[in-house]
Amino acid sequence: MVLKDLSAATAAQSASTFATLASQSSPKLHRWTRKPQRIIAFEPCKDEFFGVRAVPATKNIANLPTLTWGKGDDFVLDFGLHMVGSLSFDLSSVGAHQDSPCRLRLTFGESPLDVTMGMEGVETWISTAWLPDEVINVDVCPQTVYMKRRYAFRYLRVEIIDTSTKFKVAFSNVACECISAVSQQTQFEALSFDGSGTTTNDSGLFQAIDQVSIMTLRDCMQTVFEDGPRRDRRIWIGDLRLQALVNYATLKDFNLVKRCLLMFAAVTREDGSMPACLFEKPALAAASDYLLEYDALFAATVCDYVAASGDLDTGRMLWPTVLACLRTPLTYVDPETMTFDSRRGDDWQFLDWAPGVNGSTGSHGLVLYCLKAADKLARMLQVHSPYTHWITGMTAAAPALISDDGVVVSGPEKQVSYACASWLVLSEALPQDVARAALLKTLADTKAIKPLTPYAWHHVCDALLVVGCEDECLDLLRTYWGGMIRAGADTFWEAYDPEDPKASPYGDVRNNSFCHAWSCTPSLLLRTRLLERVGGKVAGPMTMGALDDAWVRRSVGAPAQL
Amino acid sequence: MVLKDLSAATAAQSASTFATLASQSSPKLHRWTRKPQRIIAFEPCKDEFFGVRAVPATKNIANLPTLTWGKGDDFVLDFGLHMVGSLSFDLSSVGAHQDSPCRLRLTFGESPLDVTMGMEGVETWISTAWLPDEVINVDVCPQTVYMKRRYAFRYLRVEIIDTSTKFKVAFSNVACECISAVSQQTQFEALSFDGSGTTTNDSGLFQAIDQVSIMTLRDCMQTVFEDGPRRDRRIWIGDLRLQALVNYATLKDFNLVKRCLLMFAAVTREDGSMPACLFEKPALAAASDYLLEYDALFAATVCDYVAASGDLDTGRMLWPTVLACLRTPLTYVDPETMTFDSRRGDDWQFLDWAPGVNGSTGSHGLVLYCLKAADKLARMLQVHSPYTHWITGMTAAAPALISDDGVVVSGPEKQVSYACASWLVLSEALPQDVARAALLKTLADTKAIKPLTPYAWHHVCDALLVVGCEDECLDLLRTYWGGMIRAGADTFWEAYDPEDPKASPYGDVRNNSFCHAWSCTPSLLLRTRLLERVGGKVAGPMTMGALDDAWVRRSVGAPAQL
Repeated sequence: MVLKDLSAATAAQSASTFATLASQSSPKLHRWTRKPQRIIAFEPCKDEFFGVRAVPATKNIANLPTLTWGKGDDFVLDFGLHMVGSLSFDLSSVGAHQDSPCRLRLTFGESPLDVTMGMEGVETWISTAWLPDEVINVDVCPQTVYMKRRYAFRYLRVEIIDTSTKFKVAFSNVACECISAVSQQTQFEALSFDGSGTTTNDSGLFQAIDQVSIMTLRDCMQTVFEDGPRRDRRIWIGDLRLQALVNYATLKDFNLVKRCLLMFAAVTREDGSMPACLFEKPALAAASDYLLEYDALFAATVCDYVAASGDLDTGRMLWPTVLACLRTPLTYVDPETMTFDSRRGDDWQFLDWAPGVNGSTGSHGLVLYCLKAADKLARMLQVHSPYTHWITGMTAAAPALISDDGVVVSGPEKQVSYACASWLVLSEALPQDVARAALLKTLADTKAIKPLTPYAWHHVCDALLVVGCEDECLDLLRTYWGGMIRAGADTFWEAYDPEDPKASPYGDVRNNSFCHAWSCTPSLLLRTRLLERVGGKVAGPMTMGALDDAWVRRSVGAPAQL
Repeated sequence: MVLKDLSAATAAQSASTFATLASQSSPKLHRWTRKPQRIIAFEPCKDEFFGVRAVPATKNIANLPTLTWGKGDDFVLDFGLHMVGSLSFDLSSVGAHQDSPCRLRLTFGESPLDVTMGMEGVETWISTAWLPDEVINVDVCPQTVYMKRRYAFRYLRVEIIDTSTKFKVAFSNVACECISAVSQQTQFEALSFDGSGTTTNDSGLFQAIDQVSIMTLRDCMQTVFEDGPRRDRRIWIGDLRLQALVNYATLKDFNLVKRCLLMFAAVTREDGSMPACLFEKPALAAASDYLLEYDALFAATVCDYVAASGDLDTGRMLWPTVLACLRTPLTYVDPETMTFDSRRGDDWQFLDWAPGVNGSTGSHGLVLYCLKAADKLARMLQVHSPYTHWITGMTAAAPALISDDGVVVSGPEKQVSYACASWLVLSEALPQDVARAALLKTLADTKAIKPLTPYAWHHVCDALLVVGCEDECLDLLRTYWGGMIRAGADTFWEAYDPEDPKASPYGDVRNNSFCHAWSCTPSLLLRTRLLERVGGKVAGPMTMGALDDAWVRRSVGAPAQL
């Protein structure tokens, strides 16, 4: 193999070049209209995860234009699926005359909690400006009201704060103009389940999990791969890596991944490290957030992209950036012991939102994983990889991260967590049987800190597959992602604690994102590594529009004739 | 005098003809920009009417673009005078990055109470949708925020509901695009006071009262004479009559009066009576409100218009409408006793918002006043007036409405009120000395119901002038309208109770209008009947823009260099 020297070529790549190339890859955004399917009410139900059950309201959506609403009235429209887009409706006054403005509160609900808890008294350490409610005043009816901000929602709660004693209001032509980089005509390979697998009874569940994964990904695919279209509406590297992987297995939009990688390359920090996320608007800029692991994961994301797309040119262009993004993470590896040690710096580390996780062992695995990805990328690009020494050393150091009891431990306090065990396994530093035993023993440890987020649960699943535990992985898909399906998800969530419907990384569930792409990996796992096991097969192309229509039918029965 | 028969000519005037003519008289609306003059704080002060005193904040408006505001911050901008218009400002983010939307509450304050009491817990029997606060969410800064609704305000309270820990916001280029049918170049005759009158010490006060009256009128002159630009934003006949009279004495926009009269003629009810108010939007239409007195006052308003403008053509066109609008009020006059009796029907009567006023005697005077106005109009138009019999009879019945004690009484319970006494006097049914004695005795009666509104106080003043009591009238101007000036008014209010800063016809002062044209009559009284008495004279033309600038200087000192 003749190694190429890319240093001269790439020195010419300035931040502005990357930004220009990223800008040239801006996706066309597609728009289409969805209408509400039914008027619903939520009644208490202790069998439901959120404690409430959606039931058709006594008023029928077909009669919406004739229904009148006055002060204190309140109703919820169900669009039948999660959407990203803007809202419009025609508001008319009914009665003697509209002799005052009409004041409405509109709450754009991703979850039943959004439209049943109200938005008062939210205690959260992130901004309450994320909360999905708007108060508007309409002076003269009839009028078409355009809510031009972009919302992410399935449910629209409408509260009539006030009209006057002389008039009520009526709503018609309520519509969401949906928006995504993925059109309704975009095709993907549908899965079918013929009952030949070991999981016949779960066929419907796995199909739903796959479909919800794809709808989640689609709603997050805008001008970039957003983490969540409600919050934070921007790309984070760790999230991007998973989105890109699912995308390769489903919608195959290589261009959008390339664009995001170029955007990150355009905003590297002074020391060459990578911000954890970036802002597109008002101008392309790095966020001040830095996460050690996300820096390293940029390398893996570029490797995945080149492997999936075959786009060696972009890979070569990004190679110096990949080298730079591993530099800071490697400063955390003790050159003597070749072990990652969180105490070697004060950068923020992130493996999961579960509180109190010591990340040393997890990050040892993660950095090693990324070094190996860089190594693989170097081979694809036919360039020199400088990481052989580190890979050898960190691999040799890995066994010491398993305790005498056979569980994966982290830090001086020898903390046990799913997140650390998973990443150590994912680094493939251990013989498969050793890794499998350690992972299973860790997962069985009642003291082990469990993940809070689908992001961390994905890495548990991925690790299980690395050590051949397909059934254990499927069990997690059934219980964890299946749990969200049973709780009514039509997109997967940022955070899910099966024991606590109000769990939140931010202090209040009303600031959670319920369409969060780091949760959409079941499609990747099912399609690339579990398809035979679950008795599924590729059934041929299906459009996103057909999937949406099918999902609406599943959610609310036959679509309303609107 | 040869009387003309207008019945044939006017039969051709359909509602749509009136509407078309009114539409052709639509005024050009003028727009200009006003900027905030200072950042203020309100501190408790028991010497002030509203219990608070505006003081310059520690932060200077000149530095506004450099001031940053985060969650929970709150400031008030003072524009130095009352305005009607839309608001815009540039919002920028300051800090690491705007990583969330910014949520603001904007409260458009006409009075200090609007921007110090908050808008929570308002208990009012009219719509809370009138309240002047807006909540907005801004996704990306820098951005120019346009608040496109029309607001009426002097103070803008800005509450930063939330930004995030990563950024704060800054405001610059805050501006109100003012709007009125009266331009900044419109001229009126300024008054000056040379100290020759009996009220030398009050010269400044009377000049202020005159100026505030004109600014009040201007802010209410939009596409129609609105009652108040904050609420109800439309024409009411009784209010229109006073606005038109002040207008003749000041801004002299005859066209706008003509337009309003034609609009009312276009929306008469099936029985020919006149709605108390009308709506311009979404299409010209009568309100369902009917007030007996407002029906009758249409006649007086047309008479005043023809007398002031000399526009006999419009007078002739409206004559059949005038005849029709007196029909219902006359059904309340007992043909035997020739006395108005509220019990003869169940129409809503209105002389004032003071609770519990028995209107019979007041309406006796008011209807007689309007019959006489119609009679005068008939003479100007050289048409036959059918009211001689009624005028004679109701005049003869008037003395019986004075009790043996010499006060004006109303209804079976012989209630005493300023409103009834004023209108009986205004009808000029009594010899001047009898009327004067009865009026003064009624006003001295401690049991008499006093007015709540400037509307009713105007009629008290007008009645005092009818009986030659100029000094008593001036005392009312000094105390009542002067009281509003001392309380900080730069437009006169819908309701003012010197004893109660929170008095409201609607249950909560936050739903009062603080720019209400029925209160702007001091300019009429001063200019047409009291000028010499107060030592004033016409000093020559002044533009509205110069008046506004002078008022801002008076309010806040030298205008800020913005």
